[in-house]
Amino acid sequence: GAVLGYACLSSQSNKRAVTDEEDKKLHRRCEECTPRPRTRRRSSAPSESLGKLVLPLFPPSGVVVGMDIGGTLAKIAICFSPTQTAMATRLKAYLDSQDSYGKTGRRDKKYDFQLDDGAAVVFVKYESSRTLEALELIKEHKLISPETSIGCTGGGAVMFKSAFRDQLQLGWNEVDEMQSLVSGIAFLIQHVPESIFAFDHSSEDAMATKKYLRVGSGARYPCLLVNVGSGVSILYLESSTDYRRVGGSSSGGATFFGLAKIISECKTWKEALDLARRGDSKKVDLLVGDIYGGHYTKLGLKADVIAAYFGKLARMDRGQVTKEDLVAALLKLITYTIGNTAFLYARIYEPKDVIFTGNFLRDNDLAKSKINFMVRRLSDGKINALFTEREGYYGALGAMLNAKHPEV
Amino acid sequence: GAVLGYACLSSQSNKRAVTDEEDKKLHRRCEECTPRPRTRRRSSAPSESLGKLVLPLFPPSGVVVGMDIGGTLAKIAICFSPTQTAMATRLKAYLDSQDSYGKTGRRDKKYDFQLDDGAAVVFVKYESSRTLEALELIKEHKLISPETSIGCTGGGAVMFKSAFRDQLQLGWNEVDEMQSLVSGIAFLIQHVPESIFAFDHSSEDAMATKKYLRVGSGARYPCLLVNVGSGVSILYLESSTDYRRVGGSSSGGATFFGLAKIISECKTWKEALDLARRGDSKKVDLLVGDIYGGHYTKLGLKADVIAAYFGKLARMDRGQVTKEDLVAALLKLITYTIGNTAFLYARIYEPKDVIFTGNFLRDNDLAKSKINFMVRRLSDGKINALFTEREGYYGALGAMLNAKHPEV
Repeated sequence: GAVLGYACLSSQSNKRAVTDEEDKKLHRRCEECTPRPRTRRRSSAPSESLGKLVLPLFPPSGVVVGMDIGGTLAKIAICFSPTQTAMATRLKAYLDSQDSYGKTGRRDKKYDFQLDDGAAVVFVKYESSRTLEALELIKEHKLISPETSIGCTGGGAVMFKSAFRDQLQLGWNEVDEMQSLVSGIAFLIQHVPESIFAFDHSSEDAMATKKYLRVGSGARYPCLLVNVGSGVSILYLESSTDYRRVGGSSSGGATFFGLAKIISECKTWKEALDLARRGDSKKVDLLVGDIYGGHYTKLGLKADVIAAYFGKLARMDRGQVTKEDLVAALLKLITYTIGNTAFLYARIYEPKDVIFTGNFLRDNDLAKSKINFMVRRLSDGKINALFTEREGYYGALGAMLNAKHPEV
Repeated sequence: GAVLGYACLSSQSNKRAVTDEEDKKLHRRCEECTPRPRTRRRSSAPSESLGKLVLPLFPPSGVVVGMDIGGTLAKIAICFSPTQTAMATRLKAYLDSQDSYGKTGRRDKKYDFQLDDGAAVVFVKYESSRTLEALELIKEHKLISPETSIGCTGGGAVMFKSAFRDQLQLGWNEVDEMQSLVSGIAFLIQHVPESIFAFDHSSEDAMATKKYLRVGSGARYPCLLVNVGSGVSILYLESSTDYRRVGGSSSGGATFFGLAKIISECKTWKEALDLARRGDSKKVDLLVGDIYGGHYTKLGLKADVIAAYFGKLARMDRGQVTKEDLVAALLKLITYTIGNTAFLYARIYEPKDVIFTGNFLRDNDLAKSKINFMVRRLSDGKINALFTEREGYYGALGAMLNAKHPEV
């Protein structure tokens, strides 16, 4: 099998397998172009920008695949070499010929991007429970040959490994979920336009405007990465390879949806968010002004600050409130708690930036905007809250970046 | 009217009004016996114990009263001089003759305490909406004479001031709520046995055992005071008079009760807590083990750690869960979030102790035990979580300590 190697982005289309000697040099070179500041305190030194991230060398098939087979959805990122190969051409033609594949497979065309040297990355998702059908489809259309580099993350990375090996002779390396996430985000921020943004300031219940950051200047190390999935994990990143989980909380996306189902009998995420958008949380939240008749000046609490989420309900009956208002208050509870938690971690770790990401925030500008509001309010605008796009695909993209050519 | 003055506890039964000159000296003396460490960093210096707190001098009536007229309940603390007076004797006889007064007035005899020199403090509560009836009752039985020192806090301190002045010739000074709280707690900790305790360590869902701290050695400055009422306020105390609000959160007692009413249709706090006690939160919470099939070792997350409160509901129907399990999960969400928030503030402010108090924790060892579990788990047992008794009466007690004799 090929010796594993990495190359800086400018040489990514090099298809020749590297020697051990070259591999060492390449690794060193990549470490050199990834600054790793060790200090945890904010200093006046010039900001370090995110280090350059690298794609794996293209294998003989000309294709690198990253898969993230999660509990519900499986996400796939596919990178095509600028140099055409028979398999790459066949796979690309198949993907371009339609927008859906099998029963639940869907192309996410809006997320396509191309790198400077012509390599192209495309994204596909399907329901994880259909993984064996996906395997059949790959077999039937001869979409992926064994000369392909594949990285896989998520629970399915272990569960489906033998099926792919036995039936398709496809091997993959298992990539740690957090490593996938960090690699995927860092790569997008560094190389792909409109991947990271801040919000303009806005009032509490208005949607703020996005300001995309210039490619390559998106975020600065050290940073905190707040990953809002089912729960919340907070990572401290000194670089895209040097990070650790420093904390988290258990009030995340699944808490929102789980409780929303109970209090509103909604069936889907979209329905829950639509309810939240239409509701007025002030009908159920207890505000400082409700208690003190105005600002509580001595403690510096303004009248419109929430004293207790759902606090007005303590003296109301269920019949007096709408499910819209309840779900709107629930979304505030979840997003403001995330904002508060991130604010406190930022005070402890003093990062240059705080990046919010994760599946709960995918296509969810409402939640992003509320987190932004809370972080700004708590930090008097001092914390630079950044948000990302393409949330669903970081794991797949990171698995792709960490893909290794199988030792056949 | 009398010149206002304070005396150290040992001279509290001194009934003579002090001169301005004496007043200054007494103030200085009291400041001297209240150590005020200024450092915010943990040091190896010997711990400072809580400073001595003082009662106001007794006025001619021999009685000092503190009232806390809140949104729902009014609480009264009454301190009797060891030296008998006609009014004190009459009031004491009336209070001792029965356990309830008017429609909602109740004596809380279990909270009675006596100070070293024989002064006695007793507690009464009633529903705030009955305040004018309480006034009539005081008038009818001639319970409180104008020569009484009264301090009052809570929203009713302003609302009912003129009624008491016009109909009973009783005046009071308005005491800030936070000052009342801090004074009341600090006094109890310093002077009254079984007021503050730590828990023995316990497993997650077992009740821990209380270990009461010796009077006078209860807590050390600087400390964090986490006050869990409708919402949560976090105060940083350098002494009982030198404190500031450093933060808080809006997930408090009213959030618990408000949401509990929605998800279980319970009607009372007691009912909500009973449901929580009987329920099994693991039926609805998503655990790390549910996602990864065991520990997530690389991130140091044990299998039994909650990944997302209510997270299992994302794939369940309402009919598959009991209201007991839902309210049990809700109590964990609220108490663990309080524990997590306090843990983060403790990392920022590095206090010697963290004291949890507030009306939500009154007669609520279940919630206290869960907060304790979370703080211990997060801090690896390093944070000294302390809990208090008599939560409902701190405001009244603090108002009593800050009572001033009216300038008639």
